[in-house]
Amino acid sequence: MPTIDLNSDLGESFGQWSMGDDAAMLDIVTSANVACGFHAGDPAGILRTLKAATSKGVTIGAHVAYPDLVGFGRRNMDIASDELTADVIYQIGALQALAQAAGTSVRYVKPHGALYNTIAHDTRQALAVIEAIRAVDPSLVLVALAGSPLIELARREGLTCIAEAFADRAYTPQGTLVSRREPGAVLHDAEQVAQRMLRLVQTGTVEAIDGSLTRIEADSICVHGDSPGAIQMAREVRQLLEHSGVSLQPFAGASR
Amino acid sequence: MPTIDLNSDLGESFGQWSMGDDAAMLDIVTSANVACGFHAGDPAGILRTLKAATSKGVTIGAHVAYPDLVGFGRRNMDIASDELTADVIYQIGALQALAQAAGTSVRYVKPHGALYNTIAHDTRQALAVIEAIRAVDPSLVLVALAGSPLIELARREGLTCIAEAFADRAYTPQGTLVSRREPGAVLHDAEQVAQRMLRLVQTGTVEAIDGSLTRIEADSICVHGDSPGAIQMAREVRQLLEHSGVSLQPFAGASR
Amino acid sequence: MPTIDLNSDLGESFGQWSMGDDAAMLDIVTSANVACGFHAGDPAGILRTLKAATSKGVTIGAHVAYPDLVGFGRRNMDIASDELTADVIYQIGALQALAQAAGTSVRYVKPHGALYNTIAHDTRQALAVIEAIRAVDPSLVLVALAGSPLIELARREGLTCIAEAFADRAYTPQGTLVSRREPGAVLHDAEQVAQRMLRLVQTGTVEAIDGSLTRIEADSICVHGDSPGAIQMAREVRQLLEHSGVSLQPFAGASR
Amino acid sequence: MPTIDLNSDLGESFGQWSMGDDAAMLDIVTSANVACGFHAGDPAGILRTLKAATSKGVTIGAHVAYPDLVGFGRRNMDIASDELTADVIYQIGALQALAQAAGTSVRYVKPHGALYNTIAHDTRQALAVIEAIRAVDPSLVLVALAGSPLIELARREGLTCIAEAFADRAYTPQGTLVSRREPGAVLHDAEQVAQRMLRLVQTGTVEAIDGSLTRIEADSICVHGDSPGAIQMAREVRQLLEHSGVSLQPFAGASR
Repeated sequence: MPTIDLNSDLGESFGQWSMGDDAAMLDIVTSANVACGFHAGDPAGILRTLKAATSKGVTIGAHVAYPDLVGFGRRNMDIASDELTADVIYQIGALQALAQAAGTSVRYVKPHGALYNTIAHDTRQALAVIEAIRAVDPSLVLVALAGSPLIELARREGLTCIAEAFADRAYTPQGTLVSRREPGAVLHDAEQVAQRMLRLVQTGTVEAIDGSLTRIEADSICVHGDSPGAIQMAREVRQLLEHSGVSLQPFAGASR
Repeated sequence: MPTIDLNSDLGESFGQWSMGDDAAMLDIVTSANVACGFHAGDPAGILRTLKAATSKGVTIGAHVAYPDLVGFGRRNMDIASDELTADVIYQIGALQALAQAAGTSVRYVKPHGALYNTIAHDTRQALAVIEAIRAVDPSLVLVALAGSPLIELARREGLTCIAEAFADRAYTPQGTLVSRREPGAVLHDAEQVAQRMLRLVQTGTVEAIDGSLTRIEADSICVHGDSPGAIQMAREVRQLLEHSGVSLQPFAGASR
Repeated sequence: MPTIDLNSDLGESFGQWSMGDDAAMLDIVTSANVACGFHAGDPAGILRTLKAATSKGVTIGAHVAYPDLVGFGRRNMDIASDELTADVIYQIGALQALAQAAGTSVRYVKPHGALYNTIAHDTRQALAVIEAIRAVDPSLVLVALAGSPLIELARREGLTCIAEAFADRAYTPQGTLVSRREPGAVLHDAEQVAQRMLRLVQTGTVEAIDGSLTRIEADSICVHGDSPGAIQMAREVRQLLEHSGVSLQPFAGASR
Repeated sequence: MPTIDLNSDLGESFGQWSMGDDAAMLDIVTSANVACGFHAGDPAGILRTLKAATSKGVTIGAHVAYPDLVGFGRRNMDIASDELTADVIYQIGALQALAQAAGTSVRYVKPHGALYNTIAHDTRQALAVIEAIRAVDPSLVLVALAGSPLIELARREGLTCIAEAFADRAYTPQGTLVSRREPGAVLHDAEQVAQRMLRLVQTGTVEAIDGSLTRIEADSICVHGDSPGAIQMAREVRQLLEHSGVSLQPFAGASR
């Protein structure tokens, strides 16, 4: 029986500003990438999300980011390695303590936004993030872009690193993401997206943007929850997988 | 042989701005109240201070504060209890992970500035801080103002709470601090301050501002390091205590 | 023909987080209290709101606040007078330049949240705000809570100060707001609210919570736009006033 | 009689953290690049610096920066053009109002740190800054790196743009700055620096790092004040220029 993990970004409200529908997504995903306060999330709001995740049995990851609240962590920053390492340690620790207070624990780390994209290929910043994880808890799993050099690098440095695919993104024949600047980069048809993810889980392939089949090794599928349409798409992915006999399991093991 | 702890505020630089002389103070104190990023301290700078503290064997406490960088945590804020609890958990956790990376661990919590003064008497905010400590690690010691109601409250709630005296402050006959707005509230003569602290350790009393002797129960003495004069005063306190046969020991036990 | 101003809080989105529906509200109000970045609003978002307000001919006010983004400016802060004055000058100036870029100008100042409530009665902080306005542009109008001592104080200090009523709030027989902690403090029936505001404009009175009539001197009515229901209520207030022959005019004069 | 301007970065303290010695530098320079709160400077501290500058008759420029307090604006950020334009407008406006309160006015704009270096050659970000200046006040002068393409670009866009040289930096034979990563990039001998700047003013040339003479067209010389040694060097530059008959005048005209 094939298994897969579904992950999504949660805890991204900030103070009086809400974002996403964490309650709805916690019924869909098996892993929650929870904001740590640098791109989103204030401590009280993060704690509420963690408590909700605990009650649903969803596994927790630290969604670490550049220190850029107004830019939502989506702007590249040329940050020194020692600063990046310390920033990531700080964020993981803050989330660990809030998770402890919520009766759960942090099991993995998924960098967010510009940091995620940068370390997929930038060795210097990637090593800074890897060093942070090793310094805090080397058993934390790193989640990386399927097909990126980061996966090999992190494993060589001793981390468990798992790859993720994006449910609503088109892939090149080489198995990389089609740039958002290209037409067709983002998929909007929920049923099509669900079918693609089922094929991915069953065969390890997706249909690339040119119609060819490309191999994607992924242990988790990232789904979005930032709009009602996105939530509905995530729900359809889950339902089709479940109805097709796929077991949905957190890659990092059940939360304690 | 009498023993006492000396504590001081450290890690209060921020980015390009430096504050205090952490290296000098780490040769004087036995416990370091390390900023957690809310009133001062950026992750990389905090980590450097923690590594220096580790190499000197100084015990680490989390110097938690209101979220007010520009006000240095010195302005009262009417913050909701759940927000305060989560803010304190967040800060302790961030420091725990940085301490872990530095090869040490957090052993106590000392609220900073306006938060310190407020919870000395404000039960609502005090309970919010106590709840945070209990949620993260109930073995963390809380440091409170000698003579304040917080001590009893925290103990009733199950925490270990120790009292501290301030080396450079005048006391009322009732054993409370003379307000900074009063003349004579702050002492500037290093030798006098050292003699006062020696008496405090040896007899449990200090001379109050009216010349009477008042009893102060304190397990730690707070010394400051925010100017060359303050560092010299702290050094004299330590030297006089040592030469007088007082053992300087961290109240929270040696850092691991 | 009676005239009245309708004002609302706008520009309160921040980075990726949106709040309210500025486009909808700009069709309803005559004056826009625009966030200045301290409690809400990032420069690019503020500029978009100002451009939209310019195209609708809505008059602009600076919605100045305590520096507390995570608390949305709703938490009391014990801020020194010189810091508060400088903070308010900074915010007004930032908005003035953005308004200039949008082809409009700032005509009034309305403090936000905790600052609004505090200076209604706290003379020290009120004078700090008044000093800021006088330093930047003494022709800026200050908007204050109807019935508050601030109105007299600001006028004595040489400012033009106008009073505002809150459409959706209950009043005491003394003409002050019923505390939000009391039952019935907030009104939810749009038609009732509209009728109350029509009476206020026509007779200068509202029915207090005990059924008596109380006199409220107000040159502006504050309506909210933070939910679809609130927007609908604001729309009904405007429509009833217009259909009843009330002229809706900005108190501070048309934007240039 | 040759004339030149001396400029320096001021107002860079933040809350409890001080940086530089503004009082000393205001006796040396003719133009003050004053921080606007994004990389440094809190409103109350900025206002104090502006008042001191006013009393000394020093001309004021807005030292605008990326929104990166912890990184002191020294980290490159990949910021969208509309966000950068609005950020710069916001900062100029905030400083204009504080300058108004201090009895002076903003006469020029000098980008800081990473923004300064980036727009020297990056046309997209340069145009975003230029657009901001034009939107607020097209008579504001832009200060740019001598020899950089920004100068021509800004002039083509209708701004007055003046070039500056750095007193303590080595130059290549092509008239560009030697990278800080190269040996000899930063000069430490105050007398040598003063002699170089005198030659620059008198002949328009400096000795490049290879011993050749290179032409630098500069209307202002940037001196630093971030250490006692730097202040002394700045003082020697001023004294040698004055004793050699050079008139020190702000390029942007005397502050009103």
